[in-house]
Amino acid sequence: MVRGRISRLSVRDVRFPTSLGGHGSDAMHTDPDYSAAYVVLETDAEDGLKGYGITFTLGKGTEVVVCAVNALAPHLLNKDLGDIVGDFRGFYRQLTSDGQLRWDPRKLVSCLDFRYITDVLTEEEAYEILQKGQVGKKEREEQMLAHGYPAYTTSCAWLGYSDATLKQLCSKALEDGWTRFKVKVGADLQDDIRRCRLIRNMIGPEKTLMMDANQRWDVPEAVEWMAKLAEFKPLWIEEPTSPDDILGHATISKALVPLGIGVATGEQCHNRVIFKQLLQAKALQFLQIDSCRLGSVNENLSVLLMAKKFDIPVCPHAGGVGLCELVQHLIIFDFVSVSASLKDRIWLHLLVPSYISTCARMCEYVDHLHEHFKYPVIIKKASYMPPKDAGYSTEMKEESVKKHQYPDGEVWEKLLAAQVN
Amino acid sequence: MVRGRISRLSVRDVRFPTSLGGHGSDAMHTDPDYSAAYVVLETDAEDGLKGYGITFTLGKGTEVVVCAVNALAPHLLNKDLGDIVGDFRGFYRQLTSDGQLRWDPRKLVSCLDFRYITDVLTEEEAYEILQKGQVGKKEREEQMLAHGYPAYTTSCAWLGYSDATLKQLCSKALEDGWTRFKVKVGADLQDDIRRCRLIRNMIGPEKTLMMDANQRWDVPEAVEWMAKLAEFKPLWIEEPTSPDDILGHATISKALVPLGIGVATGEQCHNRVIFKQLLQAKALQFLQIDSCRLGSVNENLSVLLMAKKFDIPVCPHAGGVGLCELVQHLIIFDFVSVSASLKDRIWLHLLVPSYISTCARMCEYVDHLHEHFKYPVIIKKASYMPPKDAGYSTEMKEESVKKHQYPDGEVWEKLLAAQVN
Repeated sequence: MVRGRISRLSVRDVRFPTSLGGHGSDAMHTDPDYSAAYVVLETDAEDGLKGYGITFTLGKGTEVVVCAVNALAPHLLNKDLGDIVGDFRGFYRQLTSDGQLRWDPRKLVSCLDFRYITDVLTEEEAYEILQKGQVGKKEREEQMLAHGYPAYTTSCAWLGYSDATLKQLCSKALEDGWTRFKVKVGADLQDDIRRCRLIRNMIGPEKTLMMDANQRWDVPEAVEWMAKLAEFKPLWIEEPTSPDDILGHATISKALVPLGIGVATGEQCHNRVIFKQLLQAKALQFLQIDSCRLGSVNENLSVLLMAKKFDIPVCPHAGGVGLCELVQHLIIFDFVSVSASLKDRIWLHLLVPSYISTCARMCEYVDHLHEHFKYPVIIKKASYMPPKDAGYSTEMKEESVKKHQYPDGEVWEKLLAAQVN
Repeated sequence: MVRGRISRLSVRDVRFPTSLGGHGSDAMHTDPDYSAAYVVLETDAEDGLKGYGITFTLGKGTEVVVCAVNALAPHLLNKDLGDIVGDFRGFYRQLTSDGQLRWDPRKLVSCLDFRYITDVLTEEEAYEILQKGQVGKKEREEQMLAHGYPAYTTSCAWLGYSDATLKQLCSKALEDGWTRFKVKVGADLQDDIRRCRLIRNMIGPEKTLMMDANQRWDVPEAVEWMAKLAEFKPLWIEEPTSPDDILGHATISKALVPLGIGVATGEQCHNRVIFKQLLQAKALQFLQIDSCRLGSVNENLSVLLMAKKFDIPVCPHAGGVGLCELVQHLIIFDFVSVSASLKDRIWLHLLVPSYISTCARMCEYVDHLHEHFKYPVIIKKASYMPPKDAGYSTEMKEESVKKHQYPDGEVWEKLLAAQVN
């Protein structure tokens, strides 16, 4: 049992000047400074229990998120932890209407808000999925502990990287045992063709290549553009158009099936209702949850359960600030208790038999900013090794927070002074 | 030609304690304090040109919107007005990607960002719609000046009103010439039946009744609930479920056609991509733009044009703080230059011939908070009379702003002090 009350909430604007190196650049976000609104909750519990939360941002506007966190603070302050855990769904709805991971199936289902999704998933269906997930759970836990959850890397091919950097990073990744690679596309077709050819040649025909357009295209444009990149055999095209365009993604999905290319999306989808429709409309073949974009673990859980019902693999979005640290918990939980599978899906098999070896469930990995976290992810042989510390791996090193606080931290004080001069 | 630069931006948190009287209450928002983030832009133009902007909020969290406005300020400060007007689309995309009404068709179309909607509306199609809209324009302007744009009232039947208040307000509205009424529903079925019977009996069978559930239901629940309210012959059910649920609204629309009830939604739809899909999926029969929820006039214009293409009547959401003042410009523009019609749609005619006399295009009206605006709306015979002053009717009375500023204005100082005691 948890005891105590939430006694204090602090939120800080933490920014890392990643734009200086072109890290994280894509067709829509050319100069991101990876940042976070970092929340620490203190309690009056005897053991000094604290809670840590972040939401990932791209620099500018983090102060707006900080302001939003402060606006929600009255819902948390002085709340009894037992009351929160005792009625997690009610607490969640209260937070989301004004504005972690080890329970039995009943308790877990009681955390989820089924409002607006009962037409595809009822509480009873969710419970049944989790009950079935109990079978073979121990073996899957052991498998995770021994081998980890398969990952792919996005670190080699940001849009702002030169071909020389791309080659160098790709060689290094191959040496390190990576077999799945994602490349940013969508700004310039000829540039895309050159970069995709370069990377496909380096990794060879057997390894997996994914492409990511970061919402750059209109619907017909996405289909035309991908027809020109099909020769490089991408497993999926990610965010081909507006993340709000469910019907547009369905149109693109249908058009790309004959080319053996799936559609992946979700990192910018803001709630379970959008994911429900993406599944209903057959608009995606790979579902990309984001641990921060979807407010809370609760909301992510309802999406994992809907994906299971529709038999769509969840391949989480990660990178950013701390997203790898957080989402590893969700995807390992998905494997152990929900999907119970690392296997690839059926649809591409049927259509493109040669893809059998390359399609698989996997979680994104980006190799940066982990050094600022107290419990950073551990990657072995291109897999996420399960975190063994308690909690959601969200706590940052206090030194990192202080140094990168915006605009008064040491790093920003120097950078902003340099801008003025 | 406009000359000058934007020299100053100020934004204030203005709140009206409307919750004290139950005004604005519905099935999801039980105690709203109608509020606004109020922006004043100053310029160095010789004539002292200023710009006024608001966005409507419900009290708490207005400080977050204020913070967001300040985050966007660097995109506006020191900008040359001629440059903005010279490339409105580029300026708009810049604002919406980091984050008014009298031009020729070419110029107007050049304000719109067609990204993500070219699959249903191209720039050329938009231009053609506006060109056709030139025919008969003068006559329609005269019609508006003489008779105004038809309105309906939401002021009689907020959910928090007693039956006695409802009766009294309804009698008064009938005396004032109102023929179209909206009632809030969705919290309790028996209560809804009693209130709907009361209002239908008071207004008689010929006048128009609309219902608004403010997102309270799941999809199957919406269909079941409305079957029970069908006897009161509502023209539409508004916001039956999550505003993000395009496919859900399509399911509800299909199910309610045999009952002669249309679906209306849009006041919480955040961009043109959601509206595009609502139209594609035949998810609504009445499209409700909101002058503040959709960022900018530009975004609203693209929705008006798409609605025209799909032959769906636009019946704007209004009320709130200043929404009537703003949206009257948009809907009168829609009549004069886009839809060119006040007539009802075809679908209900075909199905329910008795509805011919009651279905019509109309704009919501709520009778409160107009006294705080420098150029308040003028309603005559239940119609919006066209505003004749220059601008978007957004400017508030400085005295009202000062008094209602949160938390330091006179009104809030007293109310907050009373809360402490």
